[in-house]
Amino acid sequence: MKPPPSPAGLETALRFILECEKLKGIERRTKVVGLPRRENSAEHSWSLALMAMTLVPAVDPALDLLRVLKMLILHDIVEIDAGDTFCYGDQSAKAGLEEAAATRIFGLPDAERGREFRELWEEFEAKQTQEAKFANAMDRLLPLLQNHANGGGSWIEYGVTLDQVESRNGIVGEVSPELGKILSRLLAEAEAQGWLARD
Amino acid sequence: MKPPPSPAGLETALRFILECEKLKGIERRTKVVGLPRRENSAEHSWSLALMAMTLVPAVDPALDLLRVLKMLILHDIVEIDAGDTFCYGDQSAKAGLEEAAATRIFGLPDAERGREFRELWEEFEAKQTQEAKFANAMDRLLPLLQNHANGGGSWIEYGVTLDQVESRNGIVGEVSPELGKILSRLLAEAEAQGWLARD
Repeated sequence: MKPPPSPAGLETALRFILECEKLKGIERRTKVVGLPRRENSAEHSWSLALMAMTLVPAVDPALDLLRVLKMLILHDIVEIDAGDTFCYGDQSAKAGLEEAAATRIFGLPDAERGREFRELWEEFEAKQTQEAKFANAMDRLLPLLQNHANGGGSWIEYGVTLDQVESRNGIVGEVSPELGKILSRLLAEAEAQGWLARD
Repeated sequence: MKPPPSPAGLETALRFILECEKLKGIERRTKVVGLPRRENSAEHSWSLALMAMTLVPAVDPALDLLRVLKMLILHDIVEIDAGDTFCYGDQSAKAGLEEAAATRIFGLPDAERGREFRELWEEFEAKQTQEAKFANAMDRLLPLLQNHANGGGSWIEYGVTLDQVESRNGIVGEVSPELGKILSRLLAEAEAQGWLARD
């Protein structure tokens, strides 16, 4: 029988949760489908978790869905300090900022949880395990669906090209050739509509 | 070896995901800590999932965390049709509206996923299993932490009384006496600050 949790450990956990409220104030470039505002990284993370729950059983039921969900829930938390980096913009400062953010933020809960969360974040970033690849594929696929549903959305706003989107989204076809085909169709439609810039 | 997913099934799944974008437009009464705006139900669900990941290992490691996370990710989706019902307001129409919403929205993905999601939502609502009790306790505890951190927040705005908050939050102490003690301390502070109305 495990001993009851220490009051100090629980207080620490709750302070971590309150600190993470800040992710709701981190704005992404993509807009919420049907709403005239940008998406924040907290609600984005929720969508990815829902998407993984919906797709994993069809696409790859052998995956450890719990680990996929944990990674997706945590994957953007470093943005609290590091901000959201536009995926088609300058990425040079990103790694250093996010490392420092991970050290501070995953240092907030108790040591055991902090270590688990940091390892999950590193696993997501490294994109080596099947679970991390799947989680990253969700993170790529969702903004593509949103921009398509928004009639071009942030692609038009930022002059993103088809080449840029294609080179960034190869991981979707890697985790599921069938999802890759859907993605190709959406991109072909987007190109035909003029939503993606020519190089 | 499972056969590859059907393109029609995946298209159905992606339409469900896009429909669920609407949860980002459902406003709750509680405000995000530190931001001058109300929280939406999608980012709220993300916070609850993060909270469960952080607390389950300390509070009750025997729980099926995957089921807790799935319930929390799904628990408010019916609000897309039914809206958010203020927990200290008139609840008479809620059950019927949410039943109809569940039938429509969980009818969107393929039959197997739709059935799983509906069962998870019903489990959450019934509050009978240990996992459902824990998930419900998260749903009660978070707005309390937020209102406390916001200096009274929606308690003041809506004239909520200590009795109302206490009678609604008993489930927190039921899943964890230690969390129940923290909750009691926060409420005592809120009362001393005059953030909760007298009956």
